[in-house]
Amino acid sequence: MTRSRQFLSDNSAAVHPKVWEAMKAADEAQTPYDGDALSQALDERFSEAFGRECVALWVATGTAANCLALATMVQPHGGVVCHREAHIEMDEGGAPGFFLHGAKLLLAEGESARLTPDTIRAAIDPIRDDVHQVQPHAISITQASEYGCAYRPKEVAAIAELARERGLGLHMDGARFANAAAFLEGSAAGAAGPIDALSFGCVKNGGMNAEAVLFFDVGLADVARYRRKRAGHLQSKGRFLAAQLIAMLDGDLWLDNARQANAAAQEIAGNCGDRLIHPVEANELFVRCTATERETLRTQGFDFYDWGGDAARFVTAWDTREDDARALAEAVGGL
Amino acid sequence: MTRSRQFLSDNSAAVHPKVWEAMKAADEAQTPYDGDALSQALDERFSEAFGRECVALWVATGTAANCLALATMVQPHGGVVCHREAHIEMDEGGAPGFFLHGAKLLLAEGESARLTPDTIRAAIDPIRDDVHQVQPHAISITQASEYGCAYRPKEVAAIAELARERGLGLHMDGARFANAAAFLEGSAAGAAGPIDALSFGCVKNGGMNAEAVLFFDVGLADVARYRRKRAGHLQSKGRFLAAQLIAMLDGDLWLDNARQANAAAQEIAGNCGDRLIHPVEANELFVRCTATERETLRTQGFDFYDWGGDAARFVTAWDTREDDARALAEAVGGL
Amino acid sequence: MTRSRQFLSDNSAAVHPKVWEAMKAADEAQTPYDGDALSQALDERFSEAFGRECVALWVATGTAANCLALATMVQPHGGVVCHREAHIEMDEGGAPGFFLHGAKLLLAEGESARLTPDTIRAAIDPIRDDVHQVQPHAISITQASEYGCAYRPKEVAAIAELARERGLGLHMDGARFANAAAFLEGSAAGAAGPIDALSFGCVKNGGMNAEAVLFFDVGLADVARYRRKRAGHLQSKGRFLAAQLIAMLDGDLWLDNARQANAAAQEIAGNCGDRLIHPVEANELFVRCTATERETLRTQGFDFYDWGGDAARFVTAWDTREDDARALAEAVGGL
Amino acid sequence: MTRSRQFLSDNSAAVHPKVWEAMKAADEAQTPYDGDALSQALDERFSEAFGRECVALWVATGTAANCLALATMVQPHGGVVCHREAHIEMDEGGAPGFFLHGAKLLLAEGESARLTPDTIRAAIDPIRDDVHQVQPHAISITQASEYGCAYRPKEVAAIAELARERGLGLHMDGARFANAAAFLEGSAAGAAGPIDALSFGCVKNGGMNAEAVLFFDVGLADVARYRRKRAGHLQSKGRFLAAQLIAMLDGDLWLDNARQANAAAQEIAGNCGDRLIHPVEANELFVRCTATERETLRTQGFDFYDWGGDAARFVTAWDTREDDARALAEAVGGL
Repeated sequence: MTRSRQFLSDNSAAVHPKVWEAMKAADEAQTPYDGDALSQALDERFSEAFGRECVALWVATGTAANCLALATMVQPHGGVVCHREAHIEMDEGGAPGFFLHGAKLLLAEGESARLTPDTIRAAIDPIRDDVHQVQPHAISITQASEYGCAYRPKEVAAIAELARERGLGLHMDGARFANAAAFLEGSAAGAAGPIDALSFGCVKNGGMNAEAVLFFDVGLADVARYRRKRAGHLQSKGRFLAAQLIAMLDGDLWLDNARQANAAAQEIAGNCGDRLIHPVEANELFVRCTATERETLRTQGFDFYDWGGDAARFVTAWDTREDDARALAEAVGGL
Repeated sequence: MTRSRQFLSDNSAAVHPKVWEAMKAADEAQTPYDGDALSQALDERFSEAFGRECVALWVATGTAANCLALATMVQPHGGVVCHREAHIEMDEGGAPGFFLHGAKLLLAEGESARLTPDTIRAAIDPIRDDVHQVQPHAISITQASEYGCAYRPKEVAAIAELARERGLGLHMDGARFANAAAFLEGSAAGAAGPIDALSFGCVKNGGMNAEAVLFFDVGLADVARYRRKRAGHLQSKGRFLAAQLIAMLDGDLWLDNARQANAAAQEIAGNCGDRLIHPVEANELFVRCTATERETLRTQGFDFYDWGGDAARFVTAWDTREDDARALAEAVGGL
Repeated sequence: MTRSRQFLSDNSAAVHPKVWEAMKAADEAQTPYDGDALSQALDERFSEAFGRECVALWVATGTAANCLALATMVQPHGGVVCHREAHIEMDEGGAPGFFLHGAKLLLAEGESARLTPDTIRAAIDPIRDDVHQVQPHAISITQASEYGCAYRPKEVAAIAELARERGLGLHMDGARFANAAAFLEGSAAGAAGPIDALSFGCVKNGGMNAEAVLFFDVGLADVARYRRKRAGHLQSKGRFLAAQLIAMLDGDLWLDNARQANAAAQEIAGNCGDRLIHPVEANELFVRCTATERETLRTQGFDFYDWGGDAARFVTAWDTREDDARALAEAVGGL
Repeated sequence: MTRSRQFLSDNSAAVHPKVWEAMKAADEAQTPYDGDALSQALDERFSEAFGRECVALWVATGTAANCLALATMVQPHGGVVCHREAHIEMDEGGAPGFFLHGAKLLLAEGESARLTPDTIRAAIDPIRDDVHQVQPHAISITQASEYGCAYRPKEVAAIAELARERGLGLHMDGARFANAAAFLEGSAAGAAGPIDALSFGCVKNGGMNAEAVLFFDVGLADVARYRRKRAGHLQSKGRFLAAQLIAMLDGDLWLDNARQANAAAQEIAGNCGDRLIHPVEANELFVRCTATERETLRTQGFDFYDWGGDAARFVTAWDTREDDARALAEAVGGL
């Protein structure tokens, strides 16, 4: 029996040593909630990182980040255009319905869980402009997408242009934003594009329990502050969340961690050939393989999720061991 | 200029070393969410501590704990009886309205922010039993109360009896439950009494960002699980929250910490004489003093909140330095 | 046994013959919802009546009218300042919590259920300007008040001035607006004053099941349209609601009906002496009398509600028979 | 120019003379809300009509009826399985999201907008049984369906059996229940089957503004009563809604009216040949025809909606004139 080799998910990965250090350094009692020096520094630090003014709020989970961001853009009687397989639609336990007070998700199509202006129009153009049908108020895209694919800057720009034309807010779920940014050669601004709000992921990338919601449309942040408290997400020792985020920004740890995860994914991808269902542009691999083949891999000590009946999902993380990645690459190659 | 002596709030106190240790020990990747061994152990550990079967869920804040507990007992068209100065009414930014989908807080009176069967009846008996008025579905009491006073076991029992008669759920906000339990000589079960759900505070008592919601009416827990996810409170690295709670239970650290905070409060109280507005039964002191007197204390380096125009609130914590407590006692005595 | 003489409530009074006629005339099939000619005429008709541009939407009940109006002014995390005995607080079954998605009613004091700038300030000035406390977004006043008293034009103006200063919306619950307007010598504009929205009552004043929500801040109306549909209040044969409202405006039937009800109330008031608890300025009387006295009146065939332990409430309507009013006046005089 | 021949919608049809009579007869002042004799008689009258105990509540619209029924079966964190083209999904302006506090509609397939056990299972079986995905709490089917097709008794029974197995509530949207019942040879019980709640339509079938929500699972009705008030749907002169419903039941007017509408639809259907997209089993026809053909029909004075780019929807009603139906039949036959 080999020891377990984790490819289940990046969401339970270890916390990076620099994050631990930063948290320890934040221990001393301070102004509660977000009155501490670290929380107060977030706006400036993120504005710097993105080269664009923004307001940054910490929250504990990506679900809260996404829903708080959307709640500032979408009235209860409105809707959010998102991909049919978006995390907010599939995996947040109905949180958008809760935070948005019954607003509706308007589902659109798109390859590898990425929307395009055309698929968005296909979803919203048939909506009659009357009170009997829920009108779109915002668009939400995921960078990298739920299938590990990155929107290119001009793709985001085209969606932003459509959003502007239609008067819609534009939100980006960046649970794996770092992986997309690393893939796109490291520019935060480039990976984000002209969006109104970003859920900047940290937990999957070596954090413990802090994500940031960034408002580039800074007028939206005030509502988010009230809603964060109202949702029980204003922690009294917020300094520990701020510390995690700042540790990530310091020296671009967020990009370094993502590069490591991406590199491990690429190593595996190199041996997958046409088993790959989606291009590998972040740290997730969706790999065609039979139940027998999956059983073979599990016998070799690899942990991962089945993806439907004839595929496996492998996720790498900042702490994926190089030899585990190599071993998986070889194992898949040898199937 | 003296160094600052913190009596502002226990909610920004340092994290206890044993909590840090437990968190560090939980670092290794595990099943995400609450599938890890620590989270899975919570039911048993809390059932042991309370000598009564319960289901225990972690959440990040007391606001979330209170509201998730109440959401299992109160339908959107119902109401929660609570004290006019209860935290859920005064300081949670409308979170009960959010989590309970518009249910109403039905305000009752009571000395030192404690309800009694009589004040509860005074609040609900005038409610006409018809659809035009919001009917009570639950009662929420705070142990220790918002003024730092503890319900005695027979007081809780009397309220529980009334709740049972009227078919109401009974929730206890235990943000400072440990301080009450310590004051009541250390029995968890005794301080809780026959309630349906308890928000068991840990953050103010040396934790970082974990509270527990305990369901003694275990049938309620299942709904709370769904609602926790839906509220964005299901953290993927939940093991770090579970670790904090278990560290608190180990060797009764929660009681030790509370005893320290209470002792500091008693030391100060000893010098307050009839300046005390409420009995000191936990770790909060509400002390009559003029603006000039408060200025004097601040000049001596003490940090605290004004409480209205003619009083100060001092809060001690597990990490209040003995000499700070003694110094404050002397300073108040010398006013 | 005398026949019943109805002073229970105006809310179950008969429908005025002119309202019936107008409804009959509207029978022929037309564009559904509010696309019919009558519904389309409402904006103009109400703008004329109030001498000020407004948008007018029909709904079936005063509860819906109040809550739809407030929902355009108050975000889910905000609050509405209203009197402690306002209808929205006491008698709408928690509807504001539902329509406003958990927003809070912030209760204020005032004689005869009327607010003043001072009592409003007393309610909101203690609210800390932070996310922990629910901030006011609007004020709601009732014209005539729940105790049948009318705000004078300069009283409304003073409240409107405060609302403007604080950036709050101003709503008027006009379930008995007609009675107040009649009392104030018949000017719709005068009785309304510089408010943002008015629930214009019709049901209690000879209508069947139509009320109007008027938006003087016309930018609010669009949201109300969506919310009306979303609340199941967009009737497909809306022409029958519009017909009721237009019948009321035609030839000032609304004022005539209210004058009749007010006159009946004055007749009774004339014999009440210092039994009156509140000035009689509309069609409601709150009259001190013992249980025995109430029993005496009931034996004489009068129907009415007890008001607490030592008073009775009498309500007149457009169809109160003159001899019933005279009889009640005499009966009360003879107690 | 010929006079207009209405086939746009039954939802703006005239009110039946017997309904008018009943409403007039209900004019005299009575106990308000639903305390009047007519409202109080509804349970018995509907229990008789369906041969099965039920509780019957009036409301003004089908949207309110559907959503109030579902709100008794579905928790805010749950979901409702319905057809992708169900009225609650397509045409209620997001009302289910409002009344159900953010619960989700789980969309299923089925010919002519009818679900089957297989399509329901296809929708819900992939839902993982964990807190990350919204779990089904109820099923809603429409009788007759949105395409004018009737569920046969054994089809409803099979769905009810599945609902029972999975612990789901079963609701029937009966906006055109009368038309389905008439098609199924006139048994209310047969057309309804073993469901938990029915929205019994009256407005489209000759009523003015009353629908009934029937609870065969009578334990659900109490919650609906509170929610009706809370949604602003408890009219004070409820006697006029009850009168409409009772007029419909008297002498089976509801079936007579539906038979007339259905007969008109059949007359037209007889000339449509294979232009029909769906079987005609109620009072709606979906007829393939080109833009030119539709233009031809409109030139002849027929009013109707386009249905997508290559079809027309014709709806008959209780008051469709026989010669209009014949004329349309001939016109379609002559295309």
